[in-house]
Amino acid sequence: MNRRKFMKASATAAVGAAAASSFPAPAISQGLMKWRMQTTWPKNFPGLGTGANKVAEFIGAASGGKLTVEVFGGGEIVPAFETMDAVSSGTIEMGHGAPYYWKGKVPASQFIASVPFGLNVIEQNAWLRFGGGQELADKVYEELGCKFFASGNTGVQAGGWFNKEINSLEDYKGLKMRIPGLGGEVVKAAGGVVVNLPGGEIPGALQSGQIDATEWVGPYNDLAFGLYKSAKFYYYPGWHEPATLLDNFINIDAWNTLTDELKAIIATANAYANSYVLDEYVANNDTALNTLTEKHGVVLKKFPDEVLDGLGNLSGKVIGDIAAADSLSGEVMQSIVNFRNKTIAYAKFSEQAFYNARALPFKWVESKG
Amino acid sequence: MNRRKFMKASATAAVGAAAASSFPAPAISQGLMKWRMQTTWPKNFPGLGTGANKVAEFIGAASGGKLTVEVFGGGEIVPAFETMDAVSSGTIEMGHGAPYYWKGKVPASQFIASVPFGLNVIEQNAWLRFGGGQELADKVYEELGCKFFASGNTGVQAGGWFNKEINSLEDYKGLKMRIPGLGGEVVKAAGGVVVNLPGGEIPGALQSGQIDATEWVGPYNDLAFGLYKSAKFYYYPGWHEPATLLDNFINIDAWNTLTDELKAIIATANAYANSYVLDEYVANNDTALNTLTEKHGVVLKKFPDEVLDGLGNLSGKVIGDIAAADSLSGEVMQSIVNFRNKTIAYAKFSEQAFYNARALPFKWVESKG
Repeated sequence: MNRRKFMKASATAAVGAAAASSFPAPAISQGLMKWRMQTTWPKNFPGLGTGANKVAEFIGAASGGKLTVEVFGGGEIVPAFETMDAVSSGTIEMGHGAPYYWKGKVPASQFIASVPFGLNVIEQNAWLRFGGGQELADKVYEELGCKFFASGNTGVQAGGWFNKEINSLEDYKGLKMRIPGLGGEVVKAAGGVVVNLPGGEIPGALQSGQIDATEWVGPYNDLAFGLYKSAKFYYYPGWHEPATLLDNFINIDAWNTLTDELKAIIATANAYANSYVLDEYVANNDTALNTLTEKHGVVLKKFPDEVLDGLGNLSGKVIGDIAAADSLSGEVMQSIVNFRNKTIAYAKFSEQAFYNARALPFKWVESKG
Repeated sequence: MNRRKFMKASATAAVGAAAASSFPAPAISQGLMKWRMQTTWPKNFPGLGTGANKVAEFIGAASGGKLTVEVFGGGEIVPAFETMDAVSSGTIEMGHGAPYYWKGKVPASQFIASVPFGLNVIEQNAWLRFGGGQELADKVYEELGCKFFASGNTGVQAGGWFNKEINSLEDYKGLKMRIPGLGGEVVKAAGGVVVNLPGGEIPGALQSGQIDATEWVGPYNDLAFGLYKSAKFYYYPGWHEPATLLDNFINIDAWNTLTDELKAIIATANAYANSYVLDEYVANNDTALNTLTEKHGVVLKKFPDEVLDGLGNLSGKVIGDIAAADSLSGEVMQSIVNFRNKTIAYAKFSEQAFYNARALPFKWVESKG
C-alpha cells in the first residue's frame, strides 16, 4: 500500500467517528452545528493563515452560533498536504490552502491558483465573479468532492531569493531552485534544476548550497522565515505568481446539507477573507521590505527586461503545452487567456498608467509624521 | 428659508411617520426589522448602484429575513443629494453614495473618497482595514450622525472627455471643465474654470459648448451615458480619482440598536459589496472601451508626462492647503500620506513592476476563442 492509498484508507476509517463527534445529537436537535477546518499552514500563520481564521470567525458571528467552525493548523488532524483527503472523505468539513497543492489529484487546480504572467489580483477576482472563474473552479473542485471558494490572496509575490545574479536567461542553466507549480515548469524549461521542498526545509537547503535560489511569498512572510540569512539578492517582480489565491474547500455533502442562509454566510465570509488577506499583505509588505534592506543588508534586484521577456515566451509555450494535455486544464486556461486579453489592454489605460504617473518626480503632500 | 433648511425641516417632519411605518409593531414583536436605503444614483445604476443592491441582498439572505433592507433610487424618498440628511435625521436608516458628496457638511469626507495622485484601490482598502482608515472614516461620519462602511469602488477612473487637446499645463488655462471634489480644486489651480453640474446635465453642456471637458467614471459608465457623442478625446489616466470609494452610511441610533450578529452581517455585506463593485468594473471596462474606440471613433490620449508631473505638483500644494485649513481633514490626510509613502515604495517592487513586465513584447498563450 503506498502512502497515498494508506492515507485514504485511514481517512475513510476515521469518517464514522468524526461524523459522530462533529455532530453530537443534542447539538443537531438545537440546530447548532460544529465543523472543523484544517489549514495547510501552521495555525495563525501571518497572511496565509488569516483567511481561515476570518472565515471561521465570521461564520460564527453572523450565524449567531448556529454554525461554528474550529480552525486547526496543518498536521493537527492530518498532515498538512493530506488536508484535501480529509475534506474529500468527510473526516473534516472544511480545508484551507492553495489550489496548486492539489495538482497531483486534479491538474487543472494549478491554473486556479496563479499563472505565470497571468492575471493580477484585481483581475483574478473579477474573473472569478464575472468571467466564469467561479463556475470553472467549482467544476475543478467537484472532482475533489468539494465546493470551492477563493479565500485570500497574496497579490503579486516577490521574485525570490538568489545566491547568484540573473543577468540573462542563460543564468538559469543549471540553477538549482525551489519553485513549485507552473513557475517551476517554466524555470525547468529555461534549464534550471527544480527542487521540491516543504517550506520548513528551505532555509537549511539554501544555507548548505543544496539549492541556489528559492521563492516563498513576499517580504511580510519571507522576513519571518529568515531567508535573508542564506541569500543575498532579492529579485522582483514575481512573474511566476502574480496573484496567488488561497482556497477554502468544503466537503460537498456537508455543503449540500446547509440552509440557504448558511450558504450565503459562508460565501460572504470568504469574500470578506479574500479581501482581508490581501489588505494584510498590502499593509505590511513595505515595512518588512525596509527591514530586509536596511537592517539585514538585502540587495534588491529587478529581473532584467530581457530575462522577463524570455521567461514570458517560455511561459507561453510551457503553460500552453500543459493546458493542451488535459481537457479541464485547457478549458480553465482558455477562459483565463480570454479574460487576460481584455484586462491587459485596459490596464494600460487605467491601473498601470496610474502607477507610472504616480512615480513621476513631482512633489506631493509632505509627511508631518 | 433656503432650500437646505427647508429640506431639513421636511426630513424632520417625516421622521415620525417613517418610524411608525418602518417598524410596524407586529414586525418588531417577531424580531423582524425592515429598513430603507436610498442611493444617490438612479436605482440599479450599473457599478455604482450594484453596491447598494448587494448589501441589501446579502443582509436579507444571511439574517434569514430578520433584517430586510429595501433599496430606493435617488429621488424616490428625498432628492439624491439629500440622502445624507434623510439618514442623519432618521427618516431612513441607510444611504449609499460617495463620501465627497458630503464635503459641504464635513470637509474631511472628500479625503475618504479619493485623493488626486493618492492611494489606488488595493492600497485604499488596506488603509481602511490596517492603516487606521476605518477609524478615521467613522470619526468623520460620526459628525454626520452615521456609521460608515466602504461599499464599492470604481478603481482608477478615466481622465475624462475633452474637446480640446491637452499638450501642456498651459492648456488648462480657461478650460471649462466639470470635475468635482479635490480634482476640481487642482484644475482650478491650473487655471481651469470648474463648473458643477449634476450628471444628467453633462451631455447637453458638453454638446452646447457650455463646458469643454468633463470627467464621469470610466468606460463602463461613460459609454452608457453617451459622452462620446459630444467629445472626441478620451484622456487617461484618471489622476484625480485613483480609487473612488462608495459609502454605505447608517443612522447611528439605528446601528446601535442592532445585535452583534446583525452588525457582523452588515459589516461583511459591505466587504462583499466593496469587492463586488470593483470586480464589475474590472470585468466590463475593457469591452466598453473597445466599443468607444471601434464603434464610436473615440480617440484615446494619454496625458503627457509633463502635464501629469505638473498636476502632481499642483495637487500636493492644493490638497495640502485644504487639509491644513481643517483639523479633521488634516488628520485624515496625514494618515493617507504616511500610508502612501509605504505603498508607493512597495508598488515599484510588486504590482507596478508586474504590470510593466507583463507589457513586454513576449508571445504568451494564444487564444483559441
